Amino acid sequence: MNVELISVGTEILLGNIVNTNAAYLSEKCALLGLSLYYETAVGDNEKRLEETLKTALSRSDVVILSGGLGPTQDDLTKETAARVMGKKLVEDKHSRERIEEYFKNSSMKKITENNWKQAMVPEGCIVVDNQNGTAPGIIMEENGKTVILLPGPPNELKPMFEHDIFPYLNKKRPEVIYSVMVKLCGVGESAVETQIKDLIDKQTNPTIATYAKTGEVHLRVTASAPDEKEAKRLIRPMVKELKNRFGNAIYTMDEQVTLEQAVIQMLRGRELTLTTAESITGGMLAARLTNVPGASEVFRQGFVTYCNRAKRKLLDVKKTTLKDYGAVSEKTAKEMAKNGAFITGSDVCISLTGIAGPGTEEDKPVGLVYMACSYHGKVTVREFHFKGERAKIRESAVVKALTMLRECILAED
Amino acid sequence: MNVELISVGTEILLGNIVNTNAAYLSEKCALLGLSLYYETAVGDNEKRLEETLKTALSRSDVVILSGGLGPTQDDLTKETAARVMGKKLVEDKHSRERIEEYFKNSSMKKITENNWKQAMVPEGCIVVDNQNGTAPGIIMEENGKTVILLPGPPNELKPMFEHDIFPYLNKKRPEVIYSVMVKLCGVGESAVETQIKDLIDKQTNPTIATYAKTGEVHLRVTASAPDEKEAKRLIRPMVKELKNRFGNAIYTMDEQVTLEQAVIQMLRGRELTLTTAESITGGMLAARLTNVPGASEVFRQGFVTYCNRAKRKLLDVKKTTLKDYGAVSEKTAKEMAKNGAFITGSDVCISLTGIAGPGTEEDKPVGLVYMACSYHGKVTVREFHFKGERAKIRESAVVKALTMLRECILAED
Repeated sequence: MNVELISVGTEILLGNIVNTNAAYLSEKCALLGLSLYYETAVGDNEKRLEETLKTALSRSDVVILSGGLGPTQDDLTKETAARVMGKKLVEDKHSRERIEEYFKNSSMKKITENNWKQAMVPEGCIVVDNQNGTAPGIIMEENGKTVILLPGPPNELKPMFEHDIFPYLNKKRPEVIYSVMVKLCGVGESAVETQIKDLIDKQTNPTIATYAKTGEVHLRVTASAPDEKEAKRLIRPMVKELKNRFGNAIYTMDEQVTLEQAVIQMLRGRELTLTTAESITGGMLAARLTNVPGASEVFRQGFVTYCNRAKRKLLDVKKTTLKDYGAVSEKTAKEMAKNGAFITGSDVCISLTGIAGPGTEEDKPVGLVYMACSYHGKVTVREFHFKGERAKIRESAVVKALTMLRECILAED
Repeated sequence: MNVELISVGTEILLGNIVNTNAAYLSEKCALLGLSLYYETAVGDNEKRLEETLKTALSRSDVVILSGGLGPTQDDLTKETAARVMGKKLVEDKHSRERIEEYFKNSSMKKITENNWKQAMVPEGCIVVDNQNGTAPGIIMEENGKTVILLPGPPNELKPMFEHDIFPYLNKKRPEVIYSVMVKLCGVGESAVETQIKDLIDKQTNPTIATYAKTGEVHLRVTASAPDEKEAKRLIRPMVKELKNRFGNAIYTMDEQVTLEQAVIQMLRGRELTLTTAESITGGMLAARLTNVPGASEVFRQGFVTYCNRAKRKLLDVKKTTLKDYGAVSEKTAKEMAKNGAFITGSDVCISLTGIAGPGTEEDKPVGLVYMACSYHGKVTVREFHFKGERAKIRESAVVKALTMLRECILAED
């Protein structure tokens, strides 16, 4: 089954927004095993949209359009798509009620006459409720072709796709798709690929797809089967094999869980408290940990000691250490972690000190980073050399710090 | 003049990467006053790429393709585009030397036979040097149509576009384009739009375009004229008018300068040192400040006091303050800022305490944030109510803190 994406919105063509919807929908279509050969972006222009949709329908079975479902005159995706599919627009009573309800619960916004436009739908279509906005999603089927209309805002599009469109498309396939995301940290992409080369070479069902992120590798294992139970059964031995090969490098098998979440969960499960002592990353590690709702249970405080004086005053790093070894040294990292834990009475403290560039100090190379982890008084220290520009080096260091935290805790289990 | 974008790469269709190149190129084309009606993404597939390019050439004057210029067999953009344009590939001696040079300077990578493929170019084309990689950019002109090939990696594409393609396209226009980016903080998008409605209503040359970012509004003033000098002359009165209307809310007129950079520059110019005391943002403000190379001159340290005990122990917030007013209160914010400045001996300290959600504490609403700024002992405090989800609230708070820092410093000038 071929699928094709059309993103509608002049704001895309003007470069006002980055089209993250396309990337999201592409990944989901790949996961569903659908062939996606073309993605197009067009403006809110009837003639060009019509032409683009007709071309798409001539070569694909399913066309997903996003954007242009708003209440204003500019928004004409629904009207245009209905005309191309030969459907009249009729009012959908349920959507009208839902829109009414939506405005009742929103103290910020007031309903206007043009909002009722959003309750008009192509006759005979499947109406998909929007949990986070007014515009309903639409599925039209005609002559073996399917046209799906989704709202443009990502916070409306994504839940709608997840909840309704994904299962709809999954059912259209001869078989159902089921997948598990295995997330690894602390192993490089090429090392992972080497370690699973035999599995990839002989893969048929399930398949494995590799996604490299900064400091992480995600493996998506996908099986196709007549029913979900059978698909799950097919996946099981492959997941088990990956567990055997990668062990503790796997930090989660839940697609929604991030590395920082996994670390917070790990600390919470062991009733450990954490402190950060950051120099090179200047608060990025703390910021990332506190992305996680409820992080405060385990992460209570952090230090950003960007200058030498702060390292001395806030973290009691010895003057002689800084003088003899420099701020970017194993010894400084150690003292930062050890004293950070002691001062705050935390079970664990992780420290980072390094050179992010573009300039360098102490005659040390850009990208050199020392990290230390103090866990109940036992201090581990490591040296890293990161590549890339300032932002990349700092981001890599944060991911590596989260990885090192996991490893130090696991080592003591 | 019509322009059209084609992004080439199976990784786009699989959703492995977000197509930020398209957003970048779209914005630049808009800035050049070019009409951009279609953007397409296709995979590394000869037949489909050829078909897409032919369609694009049938309706647009300039077609910009990005991606698929690598050394592997998969990369076939250049070969396909040359065939469509009726050009043979010939070796470009200069590119061959440049590639040789590139590998000499790279200790990481080794040259392989297929790298020479990248020195092959369509005969009679303009070859554009790549400062950050091996694949040269290509400009082909034939029968009034122009095809431009750019490398896919953003760190190669963007500098090449900025340095060579932008001036090339600018010269193709009957007139040159010149623009100034006026960046504002502390004023909402709708307030800005109301204040410049008269300017927008009567705009012809120069024009004003509004870009809303979190907590910021950017205004691009663009003039078109026979030469750059004349375009600059046309822009001047409009920029002056914006300065009159927005005054200190304008934090820079340099496109490259970010808000955090402007704040760091401001502090550096006044020889002031800064400390952060963060609760709700958990290090995000410090992280953002230390994005700026050389931030250490003014930003020396920061505290992340996520729990009450840390606020007491690290920032000397009074037990009675926390008990009587709560952690999220004007009084706590004030003490955090005042004590943060005192403890570290900094000229300025900014504090943030609030509720990011999803849960709430102390019976206070999600989105409530107090910020205080201590400047040479004088403490200003403000209350904010931010909308949105956890991540959005935290990001809004960081931008507002940077804005408040500017305002407090300017107030004392």
